[in-house]
Amino acid sequence: MTAPANATALRLFEQHRDLLARATSACATREYFSPFPETPDRYPDSAAALARGQATYEALLGQRFELDQPGEIGRLGDEVSPYTGRSLGIDYPRADVDALFRAARAALPAWADAGPDARVGVCLEIVQALFAELPVLLHAVMHTAGQSYAMSYAGSGTNALDRGIEAVVYAHQSMTAVAPSALWERRFGSATIRLQKRYLLVPRGVAVCFTCATFPTWNAYPAMLASLATGNAVIVKPHPTGILPMALSVRVARRVLASAGFDPNLVTLAVDSAAEPLGKLLVKHPQTAIVDFTGSARFGAWVERNAHPALCYTETSGVNTVILDSVHELEPVARALATTMHLFSAQMCTSPQNIYIPRGGIDVGGRRASVDEVCEALATAWRGVTADPRRAASILATIQSPATLELISSMRDAGTRRGSLVVDSSPYAHPDCPDARTASPLLLRVTPDARDLYCEERFGPIGFVIETDDAGAALQAATADVRESGGITAFVYSTREDFVAEAESAYAVAGAQLTCNLTGPMPLNFAASYSDYHVTGLNPAGNATLTDASFVAARFRIAQSRRPVA
Amino acid sequence: MTAPANATALRLFEQHRDLLARATSACATREYFSPFPETPDRYPDSAAALARGQATYEALLGQRFELDQPGEIGRLGDEVSPYTGRSLGIDYPRADVDALFRAARAALPAWADAGPDARVGVCLEIVQALFAELPVLLHAVMHTAGQSYAMSYAGSGTNALDRGIEAVVYAHQSMTAVAPSALWERRFGSATIRLQKRYLLVPRGVAVCFTCATFPTWNAYPAMLASLATGNAVIVKPHPTGILPMALSVRVARRVLASAGFDPNLVTLAVDSAAEPLGKLLVKHPQTAIVDFTGSARFGAWVERNAHPALCYTETSGVNTVILDSVHELEPVARALATTMHLFSAQMCTSPQNIYIPRGGIDVGGRRASVDEVCEALATAWRGVTADPRRAASILATIQSPATLELISSMRDAGTRRGSLVVDSSPYAHPDCPDARTASPLLLRVTPDARDLYCEERFGPIGFVIETDDAGAALQAATADVRESGGITAFVYSTREDFVAEAESAYAVAGAQLTCNLTGPMPLNFAASYSDYHVTGLNPAGNATLTDASFVAARFRIAQSRRPVA
Repeated sequence: MTAPANATALRLFEQHRDLLARATSACATREYFSPFPETPDRYPDSAAALARGQATYEALLGQRFELDQPGEIGRLGDEVSPYTGRSLGIDYPRADVDALFRAARAALPAWADAGPDARVGVCLEIVQALFAELPVLLHAVMHTAGQSYAMSYAGSGTNALDRGIEAVVYAHQSMTAVAPSALWERRFGSATIRLQKRYLLVPRGVAVCFTCATFPTWNAYPAMLASLATGNAVIVKPHPTGILPMALSVRVARRVLASAGFDPNLVTLAVDSAAEPLGKLLVKHPQTAIVDFTGSARFGAWVERNAHPALCYTETSGVNTVILDSVHELEPVARALATTMHLFSAQMCTSPQNIYIPRGGIDVGGRRASVDEVCEALATAWRGVTADPRRAASILATIQSPATLELISSMRDAGTRRGSLVVDSSPYAHPDCPDARTASPLLLRVTPDARDLYCEERFGPIGFVIETDDAGAALQAATADVRESGGITAFVYSTREDFVAEAESAYAVAGAQLTCNLTGPMPLNFAASYSDYHVTGLNPAGNATLTDASFVAARFRIAQSRRPVA
Repeated sequence: MTAPANATALRLFEQHRDLLARATSACATREYFSPFPETPDRYPDSAAALARGQATYEALLGQRFELDQPGEIGRLGDEVSPYTGRSLGIDYPRADVDALFRAARAALPAWADAGPDARVGVCLEIVQALFAELPVLLHAVMHTAGQSYAMSYAGSGTNALDRGIEAVVYAHQSMTAVAPSALWERRFGSATIRLQKRYLLVPRGVAVCFTCATFPTWNAYPAMLASLATGNAVIVKPHPTGILPMALSVRVARRVLASAGFDPNLVTLAVDSAAEPLGKLLVKHPQTAIVDFTGSARFGAWVERNAHPALCYTETSGVNTVILDSVHELEPVARALATTMHLFSAQMCTSPQNIYIPRGGIDVGGRRASVDEVCEALATAWRGVTADPRRAASILATIQSPATLELISSMRDAGTRRGSLVVDSSPYAHPDCPDARTASPLLLRVTPDARDLYCEERFGPIGFVIETDDAGAALQAATADVRESGGITAFVYSTREDFVAEAESAYAVAGAQLTCNLTGPMPLNFAASYSDYHVTGLNPAGNATLTDASFVAARFRIAQSRRPVA
């Protein structure tokens, strides 16, 4: 039975060999690469494909989602579109978790036996099939996560798939670095011992992949593909408010696996609800060998403490920091910060939250601009983003969770009590969706006395301007905050080379990925696949690096067998 | 200050470049390699060097051990030689743990800045310097761990250093796989964004390396060198009954670091006592970034549960299993098992403990040998090992801990109550050391009813013959025991290819390294550096693989800095 499966899978490997080679080269040079068109209008046969995708998505609404997987013990699903405020009306299989594990484990031996090339071939075919599904998937992301059309296509689509390919590259490199066999010979006293040795790559077993509400696929694809490529099975546990993108992705993966002759139960979906969560049960399940978690700091901390003996990769939360020291021109910097802090209403793990400014102001092309002046420039830039509703919609998109609106409100209260309002948050009118849940970013001005407010991720469109003694104090405070509360990205604006160098060292030790002096049309927190590294693992934001060997090398183990030969 | 240090270190890298290349090639091909002579008589200038080593060791006895490291707050040390029963009379600095962490962290920046090649150069020079110290070190191992002269030289000396070089190879490969910089360019709308990116290897911080009583250096050298090569500092916490080998090793490492212009506090020693253990404090110390632990299952389980957020590698305990199905000749198999189960009185993490035999007996060259007959052959082989006291001494050496004698006694009582005695344990008379603590291996015969006795590591010279229904049941029972209680090695004797293939699959999944049908002069549990893999991480014996990329890839992290260029 494994022979035909392997033949198909090895054909897929041949078919994707060139992609693998180009992606491997990009991972080494870290130069620009993507096999995908970056905007929907350049999607193959764009107009027809996108129209078909939308129609397919609409046909899913109000229906049973068909996913022919084992252990169905009921149906559930209660997703609400942040664009329309209406239920998607889709129900999904509720699965007996033990049945999913049993099915996954039954599928493992043939998948493990298939070997690295066959598995990598199938994984890259899954990537290809997900790209083919993207015109449907992007609507699923929009109407659960609340992202814009463009971000759903690129950020949750092509960019997520590129990060998935990256994980496959590292998996392939790690596995092929292990020789399959050796002939070993040594003298012991007067005798010569010759041993034939076989080295076997053994998957860990069943991985559980938790996906988050606002950016489900971006972390999921690398995690799923890293686990699959190294021979494991994957049970996907989506956030109950964002099931559809993962249900579609799981269905695609199952279809590709089955077409290649493998058991589709290598990838299954475990849907739960806020009322009856499955998270702890999945993490503590005796058959769970790997946990990939993206989500809240609170549950993430529980996962990190309780996942053992399973291998555990997490991405939780953090405070992404900005330091303003000196700039040539203030306006482009304010604009870049405004755009980035509005992007998807700052519901990204890489969105900046805290802007540290020396209380004496900053140098702007040789003159001193006061904190008041900087705040005014930020406020002006803020207003610029939302002036045109259509542009606002393309940048801010919607607010995924109603709880975020409550958080904005409580932060506004606390922030104005403890400091002052630079720009208030308010809904903007979405030009196409009058019922869309929207909110522009709140920007508060505080001092380090309010550290309890800002030294914690305030998820959503909430930012702080923090006045520090001077630029050195800003750097010290910002990196201390990152070390304490986590941080993935960081941004520094300084015309002083020595300060930039100091910031590079300090942020490297704190473990946040630094961008210096960037202005212009690229969002400051844009992470380029094959080039930009992600979570470092050096601070509490998590250890799911996604994009290096350490993310894959422990997902399989090496067992050996040796015997004498004449 | 870092410039001259780096120049020296880079010279060391050039000096050891050929060794690194040859070791890297051996890790890839898994063929035989070692840069070291495998027996003491082939040590450079052997007679003089070994005599000098012994004299140096003897001069250490009854003295203060000088280790010029920070934070000394007293002295302690209470080692007793298993060969003489007498105290070594050496006292060591008792260190203020916080002072060690402070000193280590102060040493980190320059070490991190030095870069991979410089650090690898220094690490390989440490290996070279430890080899130069081996004539002293081997006496330290003998008189703390109780190993034989030959094993102290090879197993705790050259083989341990080879495994250390292996770790350096994997560290070098993992680090050099990361590009130091890239120029990245992409269009965003009508603009082209060009970013210069720097990728920085950031060490995790301070590693704590726990070493065990019976085989201190073998796990320590790979762990220490993996941490150092990737830019971390190391605090070594030796077992209180086996301080000297690690005190000498730490002193050597400090000397090499200082000679190369680095802060010697990158490697320090934290000595404790059974009465006032430091283990938990070190694991939970807020500055501990990595824990390498070799030791008991009980404390190991605590370490695994409590090390987070530190990265944690453990090797604890397990039951190493043997399956007898069919052989061409019984006597060579019995002899190989007997020798291996006597080797260092089975105080090795790789020593076999449980021999599973079908109750109907085994096929021996076409005829059936009953379990009685197999047991008789084992008993005869047992007596053969201890017949000549000098040979017995070279194989069994001594018993490290008095507790092991008590364990033998309690197992004898329980085993004879629950089953029968195949061979009793008794002291043998060491020809040179009349006061040596010795014990030949106890061999008990039981059924699976006595699983509570044998499905747990009984550390020391204690073995079980377990009668199962048939060979299939033996394989099932043995691999189930490994999955439940851990296991590093496994041994199968079968003339049936299908059974060997079944055993290969079953043990690979259970995660024990399998040796099939081996007889002859090589100890069955001999692990060849550069060729044999060690712990798999698939069962409770631990996850300290030592000899692959997963052991090093997460010891450093990747941070980046990017900025626009014209």
